[in-house]
Amino acid sequence: MKNNVIVGQSGGPTAVINASLYGVVSEALKRAGDCGTVYGMVNGIEGFLNGQVMEMKPLEESGDLELIRTTPGSYLGSCRFKLPEDLEDEVYPKLFERFEEYGIGYFFYIGGNDSMDTVSKLSRYAQKTESEIRFIGVPKTIDNDLVHTDHTPGFGSAAKYVASTVREVAIDASVYDNKKSVTIVEIMGRHAGWLTAASVLVRKFEGDNPVLIYLPETAFDTEKFLEDVKSALETTPNLVVCISEGINDGKGTFVCELESSVGVDNFGHKMLTGSGKYLENLVKARLGVKVRSIELNVCQRCSSSMLSATDIEEAAAAGAYGVKAALEGETGKMIAFSRKAGDGYAIEYTTEDVNQICNEEKTVPLEWITKNGSDIGQEFIDYARPLIQGQVDVPSEDGLPKFAYRR
Amino acid sequence: MKNNVIVGQSGGPTAVINASLYGVVSEALKRAGDCGTVYGMVNGIEGFLNGQVMEMKPLEESGDLELIRTTPGSYLGSCRFKLPEDLEDEVYPKLFERFEEYGIGYFFYIGGNDSMDTVSKLSRYAQKTESEIRFIGVPKTIDNDLVHTDHTPGFGSAAKYVASTVREVAIDASVYDNKKSVTIVEIMGRHAGWLTAASVLVRKFEGDNPVLIYLPETAFDTEKFLEDVKSALETTPNLVVCISEGINDGKGTFVCELESSVGVDNFGHKMLTGSGKYLENLVKARLGVKVRSIELNVCQRCSSSMLSATDIEEAAAAGAYGVKAALEGETGKMIAFSRKAGDGYAIEYTTEDVNQICNEEKTVPLEWITKNGSDIGQEFIDYARPLIQGQVDVPSEDGLPKFAYRR
Repeated sequence: MKNNVIVGQSGGPTAVINASLYGVVSEALKRAGDCGTVYGMVNGIEGFLNGQVMEMKPLEESGDLELIRTTPGSYLGSCRFKLPEDLEDEVYPKLFERFEEYGIGYFFYIGGNDSMDTVSKLSRYAQKTESEIRFIGVPKTIDNDLVHTDHTPGFGSAAKYVASTVREVAIDASVYDNKKSVTIVEIMGRHAGWLTAASVLVRKFEGDNPVLIYLPETAFDTEKFLEDVKSALETTPNLVVCISEGINDGKGTFVCELESSVGVDNFGHKMLTGSGKYLENLVKARLGVKVRSIELNVCQRCSSSMLSATDIEEAAAAGAYGVKAALEGETGKMIAFSRKAGDGYAIEYTTEDVNQICNEEKTVPLEWITKNGSDIGQEFIDYARPLIQGQVDVPSEDGLPKFAYRR
Repeated sequence: MKNNVIVGQSGGPTAVINASLYGVVSEALKRAGDCGTVYGMVNGIEGFLNGQVMEMKPLEESGDLELIRTTPGSYLGSCRFKLPEDLEDEVYPKLFERFEEYGIGYFFYIGGNDSMDTVSKLSRYAQKTESEIRFIGVPKTIDNDLVHTDHTPGFGSAAKYVASTVREVAIDASVYDNKKSVTIVEIMGRHAGWLTAASVLVRKFEGDNPVLIYLPETAFDTEKFLEDVKSALETTPNLVVCISEGINDGKGTFVCELESSVGVDNFGHKMLTGSGKYLENLVKARLGVKVRSIELNVCQRCSSSMLSATDIEEAAAAGAYGVKAALEGETGKMIAFSRKAGDGYAIEYTTEDVNQICNEEKTVPLEWITKNGSDIGQEFIDYARPLIQGQVDVPSEDGLPKFAYRR
């Protein structure tokens, strides 16, 4: 069989998706006897279709591969390209002709749900056509919403970024502690509240900020929210509230959509504001208290400033394990994490059927959400705390983090 | 004369205002022969008036003082309290009675423009009443807008945070590099563009992001802006634009005010959106290109994740130098930085008349702003680059930065 390797990245960036790329590439280069040339597809499967392919070995020689490990974002570029459901579509033979052309024996795709869908379809097409190419998915997503794995690479660093940012926001909010104020922090997560839940990790004592935390998993009631805020302000004058961007009424309407139906800007467009902005206006109007909302920016998904050592090591190891699994004959699988029972934190790498993963979504268990949907329980803290451990030294240059750039 | 020491913090928080507090307190404790008890005023001069005073020596014994050095925000809390212009006002004798009560000989106030106004008034009142208390201001502000000093503590770390965040935003924007997009980053700075200008520090080559940078120092013309964006998109498909929150038409109208006169939310309030949101809507309507705006949150003024070693060391040294100056008899002065001539970067600490500082504002020199107000020149880069140098290890605990808390 052919034994060249190709690896791609897909979906949104994370802080450690490049660590998984590093893991795949360095392991494949290490196993030069089993693996032939190692290629990267630029801009995922879409770029590959357009012939955007690069060789990866020169990066090891230039030292860039080591730099890639701590560089956030997708070094190879990304795409959002869904392969057709119909395996009879003409794109499949086209892709497999290209694989043939490059002598590909092993295909690795690093990404979330949609990327696993790509791995699923390609592996099924391979089975159908009796192709020997092996297809392996390496998980990444800050959303932590993939099933059949304890957690996903990217979540730990994003959680650490969110937690430390919320702490700094709380510090900022507390300097005038003689004046009551509400700060609403909106955190990424449309359907799953894992990342928002991570804000609980900064709480040092009962009643410490963030006092209120709302996830999309439970129905959000604006009147109850106002009651919660009013009551919390009595004991915490500088209140910090964390919400998922996807909080909703439980019947399919996002809180941010309540607003967008009303405001129109001077270009005649609907004003699309987030859930945080909506609640800011609500608190101002109804409680008359000083209030601001903060939307954490894209750095929550791709900042290197709060890398979790645990996360980056697992991300790299997942990539390397993918190569091992493929060489051992596995295909149509996603690399997964299984947490070992016992006191300390330890995980085991496994492979799971990618077809069972790609169209499912794992949300925060309802029993981990407490106080009628306004807080997070100890189970989550025990689950998430190990994932944010350890600091990572990011190389720097001229006073700023030094990253790898594709030339 | 009395020789007890009191120190306070005022105005908005920064990443290193506590390093200056550390500098004042540790120097005063070190000079126990000259200085008596070292007090901190909680919530600035306003809290002091209400009797909120704490002893600082126990913090050295508990190890908290060392922790304070790398803790962002105002450990002692802050206030925004302007002393009356009229030195005959009854608040002055009240304050000086309190100073008497605590045996204060040396007063240190760490803050920006308004805090220097407090130092100015107190020192003038002292002169008028022949009080021997010495009043010293220690500068801090991310805005870098104080006159008679090369720069201010707090700016270097904020500049480093802004620059590295803009780089990560640019990385995030570039992963789908086959699609054109505009990302507008709004950075703090109402009247002075120093912090926004710092975004230029991430540019690695001519034409690298951020390609366009707009400061409040020059008049902002929306039509020219659209032309700039259109033309930049031709060579940079994933364009990043940085703007100061205070960009204005040069006649006193902020760009963000253009918007607020139009939108009304469903509570009947004006929609107050920032300049970034306004320009996002403008680009969408007029250029029809994918666009998003990002408002850097409060962490740009108080994150410890991107501390500049140069900044934190200078902030601590400024505090210590303040104690030295006061012991040598100076009063009514602010500690200032003078950059030494020559190749390498070195500064000298000096004292400047606080009365000359408190009502002035230093903006970015117009000759440092290039390309008709859309870019920043080499002079700024040479000026700012040394201020962001060096990484700082922040202690951590349980996977998150460990900060000092006032109990």
